[in-house]
Amino acid sequence: MRAVRWLLVIAVVVLAPTVRSHAQSTPGWLNAYREDVARLMHAATSSDFAWKRLAEFTDLHGARLSGSDNLARAIAWSAEKMKADGLENVHTEPVMVPHWIRGRESAEIVDPPIHDVAMLGLGGTVATPPEGVEAEVLPVNSFEDLQARAADARGRIVLFNVPYTNYSETVTYRTTSARAAAQYGAVGVLVRSVGPIGLRTAHTGSVQYAPGLPQIPAASISLEDTNRIVRLTARGRYVRMRLVTSGHYEPDVESANLVAEIRGREKPEEIVLLGAHIDSWDVGTGAADDGVGCVVTWEALRLMKKLGLHPRRTVRLVLFTNEENGVRGATAYADRYGETANNHVFALESDSGVLSPATLGFSGSVAARALMAQVGSLLTPIGLGDIGPGGGGADIGPIAQIGNVPTMAYLGDATRFFVFHHTAADTVERISTEDIARAAAAVAAVTWVVAEMPERLPR
Amino acid sequence: MRAVRWLLVIAVVVLAPTVRSHAQSTPGWLNAYREDVARLMHAATSSDFAWKRLAEFTDLHGARLSGSDNLARAIAWSAEKMKADGLENVHTEPVMVPHWIRGRESAEIVDPPIHDVAMLGLGGTVATPPEGVEAEVLPVNSFEDLQARAADARGRIVLFNVPYTNYSETVTYRTTSARAAAQYGAVGVLVRSVGPIGLRTAHTGSVQYAPGLPQIPAASISLEDTNRIVRLTARGRYVRMRLVTSGHYEPDVESANLVAEIRGREKPEEIVLLGAHIDSWDVGTGAADDGVGCVVTWEALRLMKKLGLHPRRTVRLVLFTNEENGVRGATAYADRYGETANNHVFALESDSGVLSPATLGFSGSVAARALMAQVGSLLTPIGLGDIGPGGGGADIGPIAQIGNVPTMAYLGDATRFFVFHHTAADTVERISTEDIARAAAAVAAVTWVVAEMPERLPR
Repeated sequence: MRAVRWLLVIAVVVLAPTVRSHAQSTPGWLNAYREDVARLMHAATSSDFAWKRLAEFTDLHGARLSGSDNLARAIAWSAEKMKADGLENVHTEPVMVPHWIRGRESAEIVDPPIHDVAMLGLGGTVATPPEGVEAEVLPVNSFEDLQARAADARGRIVLFNVPYTNYSETVTYRTTSARAAAQYGAVGVLVRSVGPIGLRTAHTGSVQYAPGLPQIPAASISLEDTNRIVRLTARGRYVRMRLVTSGHYEPDVESANLVAEIRGREKPEEIVLLGAHIDSWDVGTGAADDGVGCVVTWEALRLMKKLGLHPRRTVRLVLFTNEENGVRGATAYADRYGETANNHVFALESDSGVLSPATLGFSGSVAARALMAQVGSLLTPIGLGDIGPGGGGADIGPIAQIGNVPTMAYLGDATRFFVFHHTAADTVERISTEDIARAAAAVAAVTWVVAEMPERLPR
Repeated sequence: MRAVRWLLVIAVVVLAPTVRSHAQSTPGWLNAYREDVARLMHAATSSDFAWKRLAEFTDLHGARLSGSDNLARAIAWSAEKMKADGLENVHTEPVMVPHWIRGRESAEIVDPPIHDVAMLGLGGTVATPPEGVEAEVLPVNSFEDLQARAADARGRIVLFNVPYTNYSETVTYRTTSARAAAQYGAVGVLVRSVGPIGLRTAHTGSVQYAPGLPQIPAASISLEDTNRIVRLTARGRYVRMRLVTSGHYEPDVESANLVAEIRGREKPEEIVLLGAHIDSWDVGTGAADDGVGCVVTWEALRLMKKLGLHPRRTVRLVLFTNEENGVRGATAYADRYGETANNHVFALESDSGVLSPATLGFSGSVAARALMAQVGSLLTPIGLGDIGPGGGGADIGPIAQIGNVPTMAYLGDATRFFVFHHTAADTVERISTEDIARAAAAVAAVTWVVAEMPERLPR
């Protein structure tokens, strides 16, 4: 998941008032959709098809980092399955993506001797020399604290010991850690993993270097290892560490956005866009981030086909490539379809997991919000009747911005999500059949109404 | 923790009825101990000294596998601290211990390509060739299932996919996995980690080879990886794995049991023995297994000294070496003190963590149990008034058996304990200041009464 952009969405959801629909009587115009929506939701929630598809997808194509063979296989496998599902216009749209490779990596406390540290190099980190960098550790608890101790940072490995509050707030220390430490002459940087709790669990995610500053090796370490180092230094004990990273970029690789559609029966040129990202980090199996988003948006099309529902507008599914470390799939889509962005009447993204309690977030005009609040009332049976603010996402963002497209996001519970987000523990075991079925039901229901109603959703 | 022997204790606790004391009026003879017990318990529970000592102990001497420098340093450091605490007769008693080294290890699914598997070699495993062993995986769900599929095991890597029920039941698949698979010609064996849940967490622990059977490499893998392999094969997908282990034994190393005492003022030859083990596995920091046992038994002596309490009998603390992969410390103690085993009037071990809800277990004669039930009533203020059955432990077991010594165990909650037992996540973060303080209070209180009362505890 692309942190800054996308998590602002969650912050908005938390801070802004919810648009409540259940106090309103369900408007009569929705009666035309009630039966089909009920059929879609029943088909989704009475089956474990979505969970099983996610399990098979992640079992076969575990970690899917951009440039990897796994990602290429995942795209090819999904295209075949989409064709078998009867989806239309299944095709790939080539995108050149970065090819960063983690390689061998480790961290250890060498004085006091000798203790392994649970770590993951941050995505995009440079390599250390083969023998690593070895230096005294300087723990700091904020950017301000680092600034106050700037004179101590030279030649050291800076450790950002920042307790997790929420993702959008804490992730800043991951993305900008390297530039913050490099400006004061640090030789490496570590961040306490961005997550609330864990079992000695390290979280990866991208680090961003700044032009004009040295690129120093950057890694995340578990909160337990962070605590250990902080306790040792608080007792006056000098802590010396060795950090080994091997991260490097190989030449860009051709990847692709995977597209499938149900062509609209009356207004095929008007697009209801569903999106998720098919790439993942190179640890775990990318089940929650974002295999599950791929499956639940895909399910909307599969279920319509299965139930013989042919919408007025075209429903287009795009499984974007390279969200995690480049967002090149999103950019490529916007480049390709920017001139017809106005034809996109609605865009929905699922890239926040599906854990309960989930919500739907929507961003659009006052008129569109009022309409979507009414549509939301159809989702009351699955507990998602209240549509809040906070639509959008990293992958649908660029096209939505060009076309001023109303956007929606499926937002799983954040607290549990960030326990295993970007870790080896992001596997299908974290996701229940109920949660994935509910998400598929919600996406299918909303998609059907927006694609079918006579007038396009107002901007 | 030594599985079979020690966990039988827990099974007994679960199955046998609790000796309830709270319905009885507290007998008058205890009045003589009430004030001192209250002082000890207050001193323990009004301070975070024990937690801080455990943190410092594990921060400095993280993993303490037998034969490691960390273990030697932990023993030397503890001896110095014991002297500083004013404990008496602080000394080490040499014990030769095995020196198994894990080395480089890994597991991966190579077909379908290519997926890292979260693993830990089992303690004592032999090495594979440097390039590993590569073979098709045969998942089985029990010893009976393996037997039924014996013809398929030859040349394969057998995977025991046995869901966790409780430790004593499930651990059998870890300890005897290698011999079970080797008898049918398997080239390697994997076990689903012995624990209820995790975050892609592998659990180590010892594996036992059988004479006359090939010694095959043995490792534990996470439940998520187990599920993945089982799902793939259930769908008819051939799964091929590569397993690399480097486990090997170097020559035995001299280690030691660490002994400290408060000498009895009237009956110094009568011993109240407190025990825990100072070694650990080589992952995590051995905080719950069994650093916390060392600290809470040690606290009993430190608190008596601090409060000026000089018991009638000698209280002897032994931090045993090499419990995890040899139990040589326990054997050495029994060898050394076997002739005076009858002088041991009571032995208490803490090697089951201290997580709430904890209980005290006792094993002894009917008369001794009745007396201990009365003593237990003094612990009602800290919630440990009911003494159940199930005393003993791997380290006090040998001497207790020789001398028919009444035994007690401090038994932390097992469900949470086995989430991180023998994993990298066994760190001080898993233990609360309240739980460790309560354990120290309980051990100190019981020890004081048993060491002070005029007549020795009946056998």
